[in-house]
Order: sequence, then C-alpha cells, then structure tokens
Amino acid sequence: MSAPGRIWGVGVGPGDPELLTLKAHRIITTADTIAYPAPNEGDSLARSIVAEFLPGGQEEIVIRISMDPKMFPPEDVYAKAAEQIGAHAAAGKSVAILCEGDPFFFGSFMYLFEKLSDRWDMEIVPGVSSMMASAAALQIPLAARNDVISVIPATLDEDAIAARLATADTAVFIKVGRHLAKVRKVLEAAGLVQHAHYIERATMTAERKMPLAHMRDTNAPYFSMVLVHRRGSAL
Amino acid sequence: MSAPGRIWGVGVGPGDPELLTLKAHRIITTADTIAYPAPNEGDSLARSIVAEFLPGGQEEIVIRISMDPKMFPPEDVYAKAAEQIGAHAAAGKSVAILCEGDPFFFGSFMYLFEKLSDRWDMEIVPGVSSMMASAAALQIPLAARNDVISVIPATLDEDAIAARLATADTAVFIKVGRHLAKVRKVLEAAGLVQHAHYIERATMTAERKMPLAHMRDTNAPYFSMVLVHRRGSAL
Repeated sequence: MSAPGRIWGVGVGPGDPELLTLKAHRIITTADTIAYPAPNEGDSLARSIVAEFLPGGQEEIVIRISMDPKMFPPEDVYAKAAEQIGAHAAAGKSVAILCEGDPFFFGSFMYLFEKLSDRWDMEIVPGVSSMMASAAALQIPLAARNDVISVIPATLDEDAIAARLATADTAVFIKVGRHLAKVRKVLEAAGLVQHAHYIERATMTAERKMPLAHMRDTNAPYFSMVLVHRRGSAL
Repeated sequence: MSAPGRIWGVGVGPGDPELLTLKAHRIITTADTIAYPAPNEGDSLARSIVAEFLPGGQEEIVIRISMDPKMFPPEDVYAKAAEQIGAHAAAGKSVAILCEGDPFFFGSFMYLFEKLSDRWDMEIVPGVSSMMASAAALQIPLAARNDVISVIPATLDEDAIAARLATADTAVFIKVGRHLAKVRKVLEAAGLVQHAHYIERATMTAERKMPLAHMRDTNAPYFSMVLVHRRGSAL
C-alpha cells in the first residue's frame, strides 16, 4: 500500500494565467489529480485559468456547484467531493484543489477544507486575490500608513453597509452583482460616489473598469468590485 | 534615440520566492533595470526574495530608506529615486520596481507611483499579500459569505482600534511590532483573545506562529500580524 498522498488548496489568482504563482504552477503541473469547482452546466473558471499549463494525463475531480444562493453552501456536494478527494489521497495520489483568487478569501474551498483538514495534512498555497488585482488594474493604491481597509460584501443590507463604510478609510465592495444600485445609494448618502471606482473581471480578457459615476448599468456580473477611498486617494 | 522604456511596479509576494507570480518572474528576469527599497544599512528584503532568479547583468537602483517612522515618507529619497528611474526609462530601458507583498497594499511603492505615473505609462503587477499568506500559513479561512474583513494598522490608538474591531467579523492587524500589547488589550476588552492568532514573517524561513494567548513577547517584529474572527472561525 502506498503512503497517503498530499492535498493542497491552491490559489490560481484572479483570472490572468500569468498571475499564478510559481508554487501553484509547480503543484498543479505535478499533482496526480486536480479538483475544481464548476457550475452545474458549463466550464470551470478555476480550471480555465490553468488550462494552458496542464500536462495532460491527470485525473480530474469536477465539483459541480449550483450557483443558486438559496442552495449555498451545498453540504451534500462538498461532502461527496471531500470523499472523492480523500479516496484519491488514500490511494497515494496527490491532489491539487484549484481555487479562484486566494483559497481563504471568501472562497468556497473552505467548505472542502473543513471536511478534509481533520483527516488529512493539507497545505494552503495563497494566491493573488481579486482585491489586489482590482487595485492594480485601476491603478489605485488601496491604503497607506494608518488607513483601515474594510472588505464589505454588497450582499449585506443598506444599514449594515453604511455602518461598515463609516469606520473605513478604504472600502472594497465585493459580490457587487445585482447589489450595485444599493452600493451606489449608500455611497451617495456618504458623499463618496465621486471617489468610487467600478471594475469587473479584473485581469481577465473581458475586464471592464470606470469611475462608478460613469457606470450606467443597474446590475453587474458576480465578479465585480467597487473600490473607494474616503480621501479620494491613499496618497 | 530609443523609445522610452516601460516601468512596472511588481509585487514579489510575502517572502517565499516560490510565491512570485509567473508574470513577476518574467518581468524581473527580463527588465533592463531593477529598483528596490533597502534600509539605510543592510540588504533589501524585496531583492532577497527574487535574488535566485536574477540573471545577472541588470542595472540596479537601490532606494535607501530610513526605517525611522518620524522620517516617513522621506520625500527627498522618493523624489531622487523617481528621477533615477525616469532617467533609465527615458534612455529606453525597462525598469521593474520590486515591492514586498502587493504593491498597493500599504506598500511604500505608492510614493514612487505618485511621482512617476503622471509622466510614465506604468503597469502594476499584483502580488500575494502578507494577509493572504498569513491566513494560509495559519490555516485560518479569512472570511465567508457576508463577513466583513477589516485590515487595521496596529499603529492606531486604542479607541480607534476598538471602534474598527466592533464593526468587523474578521480583523487583520498589521504593523503589529511594538503595538502588540495594545492589540492584545483591545482584544481582551472585546473578549476575543481566545479567537486570535499571531504570526510573524509568514512564508519566510523564520516564520513563527501561535495562538495569541500563547505569545508571551511584549513586542513583535515589524512583519507580524494578528488575525481574529469574531465567531472563532469563518466556517
């Protein structure tokens, strides 16, 4: 019987394949098995980011996850995936679990981690997060000196968002999607719209960015962010 | 006369050379000139992270910066460095400015960016930040679902820290250093010490980590963080 294989949670960065780390590249190209999330129908974004590097011949575990927020997190899906990954590791195979951006920054990987880390010795490989990628693409320094950065899910209600915004120098709104109008409203009430910037799909081919004041769409894609610095700039 | 060269601000990650991105690796190994910060005496951390990849023969601009906080940011030092970097670019040379972690996450690079970006077409290459690297090393998911993450410089005073902590689900204290006792005191008052984790020099050879309750030192090195999740875990 072979020794149990290793399991990694590997951040693959925000979208540009070149933003993979050397370590992620090494692990993904040499692991026996890769595992990755995918929507119920369609391709996996995480896999597409690393596709050009895959050597071929690896086993693949596709974790199909419903994008319906009412179904999230789908316990049975993660339980089944953890079982599959554990079976590969038990058979002596090394498994790289691909995670968009960074594994521990709002990633669904943590549900797998929860189920696997008790039984298996796992290693997490941090990745470039969409927050840093968005700031770089917008050419907006996130924070300097004593600035407080708050990362605020736009899924929160208006009052909760306003309270978090009030104690932040830099606010990074994530999961903007269909909550764009709400974010705009809170920023208007705080007099901060003129300092806010919108970006979607940072570092991907379809990247789109503009001052929030120029953004006329009512909704945004899931992979979108709004960045704002209270003083207009960290500098 | 040759065309002006390009200038990049390149994140080199938190310390482990393997956490460099493929893009950073490409740019750093092919740029005509590399520029990097260093203390007044001693070696540059940013350069040491990439040292093993340097092909040799590149020009190097060392930006000597006093570590005395009273002198920060040293305007004259950044002005002179921006002039040197601009002169290289004007001569048709490409210049990679090395930045520890991510260039726009509390990096001193932004002072150079401010002086150079008006005149030069710059590109920022995001990097793995110490925040994500620390969470990975501690094996602590930063945030899930509707969690608000606040990044709080420990340099703030006690009341300011307590107010920011109160509106956060996850608090990431940076620049802990000699402010460790203050951070501990605020966390004790909030009843959160038992959920807090300490880490210094994440991903470097000298990495050290433990529950905050086990950390007996009064002071910490500059490259240290305290991570705490209000619920004990994002999961």
